[in-house]
Amino acid sequence: MKAFQDYYPEHLAHCYGCGRLNEHGYHLKTYWDGEETVTRFTPSAFHIAVPGFVYGGLLASLIDCHSTASAAAAMYRSELREMDTSPPFRFVTGSLQVRYLLATPLGPELVIRGRVQEIKGRKVVIESTVSVGDALTVRGEVVAIQMPDDFGA
Amino acid sequence: MKAFQDYYPEHLAHCYGCGRLNEHGYHLKTYWDGEETVTRFTPSAFHIAVPGFVYGGLLASLIDCHSTASAAAAMYRSELREMDTSPPFRFVTGSLQVRYLLATPLGPELVIRGRVQEIKGRKVVIESTVSVGDALTVRGEVVAIQMPDDFGA
Repeated sequence: MKAFQDYYPEHLAHCYGCGRLNEHGYHLKTYWDGEETVTRFTPSAFHIAVPGFVYGGLLASLIDCHSTASAAAAMYRSELREMDTSPPFRFVTGSLQVRYLLATPLGPELVIRGRVQEIKGRKVVIESTVSVGDALTVRGEVVAIQMPDDFGA
Repeated sequence: MKAFQDYYPEHLAHCYGCGRLNEHGYHLKTYWDGEETVTRFTPSAFHIAVPGFVYGGLLASLIDCHSTASAAAAMYRSELREMDTSPPFRFVTGSLQVRYLLATPLGPELVIRGRVQEIKGRKVVIESTVSVGDALTVRGEVVAIQMPDDFGA
């Protein structure tokens, strides 16, 4: 199954978070799971905050990239179109809100899940969470804005 | 001049953002500049979003680490104490809000500046910005919470 990010054209596939062409990046892959979107990511040992716990900046990055990818996918789905059809939808982050509910243990796989809260014009609001096993540790909201047509072109 | 992060004890110096002992991390260094705090950071070429612009997750990380370090420094300053005196103040992020006002050009040095908005009990609120030259590109707010005494000990 292709991930949302696999549909990005080459010139938009360099993102440190989700670009398949960024050799230093996270290579995030996001999929539909019913009405939710899901990304799975296992941090490296150096993605540390204090010993035993995941670095908050990584968690913010996961919320951000997961949510903008989800925004694009949601926009295509709202038009009943596949992600490889034109015109393309690409999103940037307008604002990012992250609440750290519990310290996130470093080691296990993290599961990031998103839900569409609103689609309005060029704006999509996504609520996302990070969980480890049964523990929901981070809750975030992203307001994603459709890129101007000349952005990164 | 010692940076705020240079005062962190060894067991708290592994953070990917600001830990001097994390060989993969950013090694952020934050200083007082009058009533403001300042961190300078030059992203690498791979810290890319779309070509020419900085990855938003890095910008969120810079706001986060800069602000929690600023929170600790502000707490010491509010007690007229040096950062190497006891009891130590260490902060974690309770919540992080980031607004991306302009795309941040990739290449030049970024300057992150913070101001204390509130100190109340174990909570410090810091407002921080990211600028490139004269352009203010990102505005953020962090609610930093003093770590429980047994956290990361």
